Amino acid sequence: MPEERSRGWGVAIHGGAGAIPADIPPARREACIISLTAILEHGAQLLSRGSHALDVVEELVIRLENEPLFNAGRGAVFTSAGEHELEAAIMDGSTLDCGAVAGIRTVRNPIRLARCVMQQTKHIMLAGAGAEEYAESIGLERVEPSWFDTDHRRAELERYTEAPALLEQEGSTVGAVVRDSAGRLAAATSTGGMTGKMPGRIGDTPLVGCGTYADGGCAVSCTGHGESFVRHVAAHEVAVLARSSGRGAEGAVEQVLEAMPDSVGGIIAIDRESAPVALFSSRGMYRGRADSTGLFETLIHGEA
Amino acid sequence: MPEERSRGWGVAIHGGAGAIPADIPPARREACIISLTAILEHGAQLLSRGSHALDVVEELVIRLENEPLFNAGRGAVFTSAGEHELEAAIMDGSTLDCGAVAGIRTVRNPIRLARCVMQQTKHIMLAGAGAEEYAESIGLERVEPSWFDTDHRRAELERYTEAPALLEQEGSTVGAVVRDSAGRLAAATSTGGMTGKMPGRIGDTPLVGCGTYADGGCAVSCTGHGESFVRHVAAHEVAVLARSSGRGAEGAVEQVLEAMPDSVGGIIAIDRESAPVALFSSRGMYRGRADSTGLFETLIHGEA
Repeated sequence: MPEERSRGWGVAIHGGAGAIPADIPPARREACIISLTAILEHGAQLLSRGSHALDVVEELVIRLENEPLFNAGRGAVFTSAGEHELEAAIMDGSTLDCGAVAGIRTVRNPIRLARCVMQQTKHIMLAGAGAEEYAESIGLERVEPSWFDTDHRRAELERYTEAPALLEQEGSTVGAVVRDSAGRLAAATSTGGMTGKMPGRIGDTPLVGCGTYADGGCAVSCTGHGESFVRHVAAHEVAVLARSSGRGAEGAVEQVLEAMPDSVGGIIAIDRESAPVALFSSRGMYRGRADSTGLFETLIHGEA
Repeated sequence: MPEERSRGWGVAIHGGAGAIPADIPPARREACIISLTAILEHGAQLLSRGSHALDVVEELVIRLENEPLFNAGRGAVFTSAGEHELEAAIMDGSTLDCGAVAGIRTVRNPIRLARCVMQQTKHIMLAGAGAEEYAESIGLERVEPSWFDTDHRRAELERYTEAPALLEQEGSTVGAVVRDSAGRLAAATSTGGMTGKMPGRIGDTPLVGCGTYADGGCAVSCTGHGESFVRHVAAHEVAVLARSSGRGAEGAVEQVLEAMPDSVGGIIAIDRESAPVALFSSRGMYRGRADSTGLFETLIHGEA
């Protein structure tokens, strides 16, 4: 099959990029690596069994949302009003179908809701009370807002409230990009946003083309300073450059990170023929990559 | 100045693209043309006096929002719940600064709020109750939700409720793109969305890169079937193609409209050196174009 240049399945996941201190407490480091490894292994198993890219990114992001270590689903950061407002997006590169939600307070897994919006409504994006009413109407699992609380994020909000300028955002948005064994691409991203964000703020994560994008040539999920990813329409820019530059996803991600401010965050991406990419300009990025050639790694800083 | 290839100021505005019937009632046709002409003349005056592109797009969209004929601000369509949920975005191409709002119910001019989010907060996008609280905190003019009501849109909702599949959406989102006499580019778009939309639905208009985008080379505002513009990240795609194809804004808009479904809507755009562009694949588009070379036209169908 000379036309088929895909090199088999591949997957990258992230648990966020940001000012992750080099001296992160060993217990937290170990817990993050164990969690990322288990989730990445699950993705590799699904893909080696032939699962559809869209199902795999959803399943991996559900697991990342359920993991309280990361800033999505349980473990989400707090707004300046001390609440959670979650957002997520999912996109199928082979059809350009996509779904997104924002301002979610009671839906246990926002990425599930995003996929339902994509597949069961005529719309792409629902926010706030309308999105929650829709979740109720389709019977999606709801939780009390306090279910998302963790001590770690409460302490971050307290540090933010005392000195907003001093809090270095650790990020911890989660995401996944996948190429399945049939060569289909998909991307998904989910987050609580940034600690101390204004109520109602929507970041890059649920904005198609900004924090999340997939087409027939590239799937992309971003993490970091959301507003920078929005003004550069970063995820779509990566897909466009991967298509036009001849340098694939890796060259495209490098170029887009270089065009944005220093330390802005990180991007995971995968194209039709190369190893999955996970690059960042911030201090660290919780991340993992695996593919059908035997690549398997989970990292936090630049150890690779 | 051999480096300065701008041909002076230029402006395009739209009052939406969609299934505008060829036999639109003469009184409505005349009222629309009179309104577009007055607004375009105002833009031409501001630009010939040297106003900043960002100020001009905001001012023109405020006037289009205030005009009850169009689906933005007063005259906005109704959601399936019989309410208004307005959205808007504005972007300065010379800085990539941008602001956007969605789910607005009581702010008289959503585009003003979008500009305040851009210039006075650390965020780009605010939605729903948080956006309205912010509007309250800065003293922006508020109105009762019923202030946006018009008989024309109420009748559209009734037709939609009786037979959703039969209502041909007329569109009528509003927008403006400008190149000022210093060569700076800006874009702004505002809408009530689509008649009968689900509560909480966010369309392409306030999504940076989808319905609205501007960079140093091109400013873009879209109108039509919002979900199609989202999945194609249409406004950013136009800007990328204008930059890379050598065919400028006109060639880029043609290419992006061709890549989307038939009758999807229309796009206005302006680059650094050519006449403003207003093209559409739908039955019609309320539109106007003017520039410093003497171009001045307002049209609804393909009369040009």
